[in-house]
Amino acid sequence: MEWILHNDEFIQEDELKISKEDRGYQFGDGIYEVIRVYSGELYTAKEHIDRFYASAEKVKIVVPYTKDVFHKLMYDLVEKNEINNGQVYVQITRGSYVRQHQFPADSSPVLVGYTKTVERPLELMRNGAHAKFIEDMRWLRCDIKSLNLLGNVLAKQEAYENGCYEAVLHRGEIITEGSSSNMYGIKDGVLYTHPATNLILDGITRKTILGLCEELGITVQETPMTKVQALKMDEFFMSSTTAEIIPLTEIDGFQIGNGARGPLTEKLQKAFEAKLNLGVEVQ
Amino acid sequence: MEWILHNDEFIQEDELKISKEDRGYQFGDGIYEVIRVYSGELYTAKEHIDRFYASAEKVKIVVPYTKDVFHKLMYDLVEKNEINNGQVYVQITRGSYVRQHQFPADSSPVLVGYTKTVERPLELMRNGAHAKFIEDMRWLRCDIKSLNLLGNVLAKQEAYENGCYEAVLHRGEIITEGSSSNMYGIKDGVLYTHPATNLILDGITRKTILGLCEELGITVQETPMTKVQALKMDEFFMSSTTAEIIPLTEIDGFQIGNGARGPLTEKLQKAFEAKLNLGVEVQ
Repeated sequence: MEWILHNDEFIQEDELKISKEDRGYQFGDGIYEVIRVYSGELYTAKEHIDRFYASAEKVKIVVPYTKDVFHKLMYDLVEKNEINNGQVYVQITRGSYVRQHQFPADSSPVLVGYTKTVERPLELMRNGAHAKFIEDMRWLRCDIKSLNLLGNVLAKQEAYENGCYEAVLHRGEIITEGSSSNMYGIKDGVLYTHPATNLILDGITRKTILGLCEELGITVQETPMTKVQALKMDEFFMSSTTAEIIPLTEIDGFQIGNGARGPLTEKLQKAFEAKLNLGVEVQ
Repeated sequence: MEWILHNDEFIQEDELKISKEDRGYQFGDGIYEVIRVYSGELYTAKEHIDRFYASAEKVKIVVPYTKDVFHKLMYDLVEKNEINNGQVYVQITRGSYVRQHQFPADSSPVLVGYTKTVERPLELMRNGAHAKFIEDMRWLRCDIKSLNLLGNVLAKQEAYENGCYEAVLHRGEIITEGSSSNMYGIKDGVLYTHPATNLILDGITRKTILGLCEELGITVQETPMTKVQALKMDEFFMSSTTAEIIPLTEIDGFQIGNGARGPLTEKLQKAFEAKLNLGVEVQ
């Protein structure tokens, strides 16, 4: 029996009633988070919950629970659904109201959360994936984890249709991030990644990686990288909550470095994994 | 009894079941139209239906009905709900599937349509409204009438919070359009409006207005206008399917022209109204 969180109540799928005028459905007027679950524990829960509230605040949606209550709801959802390795997806919209662009005076936010079992992409983490350069057409508030994801969807689809796992988005010559990931290049031992401006989502895994770089003594340059620079990197990789760290060994058909997972990428993967305390090694 | 269109079936609100994983709800992965109804007739139905299919095609959603069948569904919806003056709202999403950014292999599009009664905003059409300049933060495919409307929502809300009816969006110095309307300035008898590029929605009312200009011998310049140029116009107005033509007599507190509806704006309103054949005059 799979439980769904609807506001602060646990219900069954068939009890969930989403209005045709839920502003999430008509405007994408809402925000979301995906929280990873390892060994039954919510991973970096505080960071995800903080960002959930920060995204909501940026679009002026008031989450009607304290962060502690919200955390408890996530915890209970995972426990009730007996998720060992998986994720929680949770979103909140501005609620339902007669359609109008401006905020309704008296709508109540609608929260929906659910879980699923997810395996770690070990094979991709080991062997890497191919990526494609795609022009970043998205809005100028990519720092908000909003439900307006059509630009991301179209980019990911274009990558897939070209036999690639992810899109490397760029505005003009400048690489921003992936369609659902952050992007990193490594050259002469220095890690380069786009600064956390309005043009990218400030990933939680990104934060973790930057912290690991400090621990490992890897110099980080949070400066934009051009497409040309990207292709000349020794190593290139992407990160996300569910993908963790995946080497990108080819972009637009051009081999990066020697075309295999690089040593610093592997070092970061191992350091990342060590914090998970799973007792499973990346090979 | 109000009927809702769900795919090609007419149902009651309480029968409508929207999945939590409808891609419209999680990604805004869909497109929509609003079609105006005057005296029980769908106005410029063909143009709206053509744009609905064009938007769908741009995001690679296949509408599973011919345009004739779709038109008939809209017609039947209006008739069943006995709408005299009002509108049809209709959207289609890529359907429901386990959440992933790339298109699912086997989801079926979900269409939802409904009607409401709407009055013409006669008072605003006569006396005009105030507007506010707001930076256009939206994506670079504003030509698609998609469900990704958070940028529009936030702009409209900012306008409202500043006592204004609409946002005049601008990218840098260049005015694009409104948050849910197109924008026009008139100077020395010439009408200026942003060309129908990827930066604006090619409004049906906009098309009608440009056609009326030709009939009335008003020169049209489809060239971008700067903010400074806008403030120096003799007349300024906005258009949309539901708002028709509304004079904007003040932007950011600056009076446009003499601060009242201008003569060419009024002429266009009357010519627009004449085509509606309602027998109601704008005063």
